[in-house]
Amino acid sequence: MFKEIFDNVREKCPLIHNITNYVTVNDCANVVLACGASPIMADDKDEVSDIQTICGGLNINIGTLNSRTIESMLLAGKRANELGHPVVLDPVGAGASKLRTETANQLLKEVRFTVIRGNISEIKTLALGNGTTKGVDADLADRVTKENLDEAAAFAKAFAGKMNAVVAITGAIDIVADAEKAYCIYNGRPEMSSITGTGCQLSALTAAFVTANQEQPLEAAAAAVCAMGLAGETAYARLSELDGNATYRNYIIDAIYRMNGEALEAGAKFEVR
Amino acid sequence: MFKEIFDNVREKCPLIHNITNYVTVNDCANVVLACGASPIMADDKDEVSDIQTICGGLNINIGTLNSRTIESMLLAGKRANELGHPVVLDPVGAGASKLRTETANQLLKEVRFTVIRGNISEIKTLALGNGTTKGVDADLADRVTKENLDEAAAFAKAFAGKMNAVVAITGAIDIVADAEKAYCIYNGRPEMSSITGTGCQLSALTAAFVTANQEQPLEAAAAAVCAMGLAGETAYARLSELDGNATYRNYIIDAIYRMNGEALEAGAKFEVR
Amino acid sequence: MFKEIFDNVREKCPLIHNITNYVTVNDCANVVLACGASPIMADDKDEVSDIQTICGGLNINIGTLNSRTIESMLLAGKRANELGHPVVLDPVGAGASKLRTETANQLLKEVRFTVIRGNISEIKTLALGNGTTKGVDADLADRVTKENLDEAAAFAKAFAGKMNAVVAITGAIDIVADAEKAYCIYNGRPEMSSITGTGCQLSALTAAFVTANQEQPLEAAAAAVCAMGLAGETAYARLSELDGNATYRNYIIDAIYRMNGEALEAGAKFEVR
Repeated sequence: MFKEIFDNVREKCPLIHNITNYVTVNDCANVVLACGASPIMADDKDEVSDIQTICGGLNINIGTLNSRTIESMLLAGKRANELGHPVVLDPVGAGASKLRTETANQLLKEVRFTVIRGNISEIKTLALGNGTTKGVDADLADRVTKENLDEAAAFAKAFAGKMNAVVAITGAIDIVADAEKAYCIYNGRPEMSSITGTGCQLSALTAAFVTANQEQPLEAAAAAVCAMGLAGETAYARLSELDGNATYRNYIIDAIYRMNGEALEAGAKFEVR
Repeated sequence: MFKEIFDNVREKCPLIHNITNYVTVNDCANVVLACGASPIMADDKDEVSDIQTICGGLNINIGTLNSRTIESMLLAGKRANELGHPVVLDPVGAGASKLRTETANQLLKEVRFTVIRGNISEIKTLALGNGTTKGVDADLADRVTKENLDEAAAFAKAFAGKMNAVVAITGAIDIVADAEKAYCIYNGRPEMSSITGTGCQLSALTAAFVTANQEQPLEAAAAAVCAMGLAGETAYARLSELDGNATYRNYIIDAIYRMNGEALEAGAKFEVR
Repeated sequence: MFKEIFDNVREKCPLIHNITNYVTVNDCANVVLACGASPIMADDKDEVSDIQTICGGLNINIGTLNSRTIESMLLAGKRANELGHPVVLDPVGAGASKLRTETANQLLKEVRFTVIRGNISEIKTLALGNGTTKGVDADLADRVTKENLDEAAAFAKAFAGKMNAVVAITGAIDIVADAEKAYCIYNGRPEMSSITGTGCQLSALTAAFVTANQEQPLEAAAAAVCAMGLAGETAYARLSELDGNATYRNYIIDAIYRMNGEALEAGAKFEVR
């Protein structure tokens, strides 16, 4: 199944509109190109509707947000909803400032998202802000482990159901869930967290995957998460004793570029709960 | 001739002011350094005149434009004109949104450009917006090929004459033309389009080349286009089976860094029409 | 001593808030991660106080400043001062425009800095703007050499005393001084200046080092300068004949990633004047 999903990305070459932070934007553009899609970055309120109209999907990432770009995120998100385009939210740093938490919550209220992708802390912040599954949140640790995996998967499903979206919680173990089904994904390397923006890259990649596979957003998001993790493994295997996080960053994008559907199908490590 | 042009860049080390998008700005700065020039990035309206005054040339790139930076582009462009400094326009995404098309047209009306560099689609958008060579545009395909090369060269010359600028249309075959003469350039690799910003990098490089060679902007722009394409070839030859677009990006900048006038002269592949 | 200083960074993993330019921001984030600290980039006035509150230190870099971010720099700086957090200033391009010079001077007036790091030209601009050591400035050349090292060290000490901060002047020879003591540092390679943002990276690294070593800011800043220079040497030794400034950029960050306290202690080349 993941094979067909990735093949669809390379065949359909979807055009993905990104409103994203200026820290990792170049890597996001290159990873979208690496998977076979095309990126456009545009964040002015006077053009985001036009740009979204010619695109197939939208990726909203709130890292380095500001009052100017928040307005553009809302406009682009609403336009994407009107057009029936998939929209991904990366709530970078939700919980770290009032502005980020409030902006993420406002986006969730005014825009319908296909996928919400963040770490456990960000997703918990959103779930609390939306009054969901509070009991679970309170108990849930800030790290998904084998021990609390069932609990975390239940939390992801509950929040996915509440938001009517796919929820992707990434970390040592990744969970990608809709209301009914959770993929628990074991790809990836801990060293990926020493690179800035692997999460941002994954969100951009996810937008490409769900845009090329609109009838199966859960599986497309899970495939994107597996692809990123697998790229992290492949890239890690190439590193010499002198290489560090900068070379690792490049090799991960390279690995997406060289990956194909069959390699993804063969390398994906997951179970469904 | 291209040898002397590149040697001039390395000898004169021109300082190039860039108002450019936040996606590829780091690569633009590094490619300007790689060719022997120096970059300054500055986009606030309260400093662009000061910065342009201490620079030798200006590169305006409208990717990720916004209302704040559009004003700065106009101010910097006018100041460069007053000072007699070469100015390059990269109309990224002209045609993709009303804002980009109108901004590009406003820049063309209010600022005199030395070189206008874009892909065929962007340049056609500008030519139509300026009421030029409409018949040619209508017929001209969105890809320059051996079959339509004469037509494309005629279009480039006509638009160059209209704008009194050098026009560089880059793609599988590149055309660099003034009103009288068109360089048709065969350097480059198709894989370069899998990297974000090779076009942006080329515009920044072109600004460095024309600033160091002000008496021959056509040849300087053609030399920059050949240099970028040749770097794409040299870099491609280094790639292993594991390398992808991220490593390719680095190797292209590296190839500019290692290139000299003689290598450019020997590797440039072009004909004049 | 430098061993312990670097070990502290890796052990304490300080969270560093960066308000920095969009040119080199990705490299700044990756170099902060490479040394074992964590970066957050945030520049909106409505969140910088919140973000600074959860961080341990602040790095303010005025490259690509604008009216919106200048306000945020002042707010974040004042908040960091209230919290007793170390603050680093990188006055990129002070002297190149009125806006940069005035902004740097305003920051120096309204915010107390732990370290001020720039090249000799930038630091001279600040010293003149603050009315300090004018006689020395007037005579001091724009390049620190063995010949004028005593004079430059005296200038650095005088400005450090005036500002009650550590002053780091980087160039062929680096000087890191407080009012009493100047480290003259001989690490580094001239080729580092062919990469955009090695100075910006060093400022971000310095913020991490001083935040993890608050009781000895002079030594921490000197250690960061040695670490960056040593990384430049280590990375240079890896370069092939085909590599240029793009690969060199990656290898320098890699070298910080692979460096440890012992390697820094062994490789640091300095004298105290």
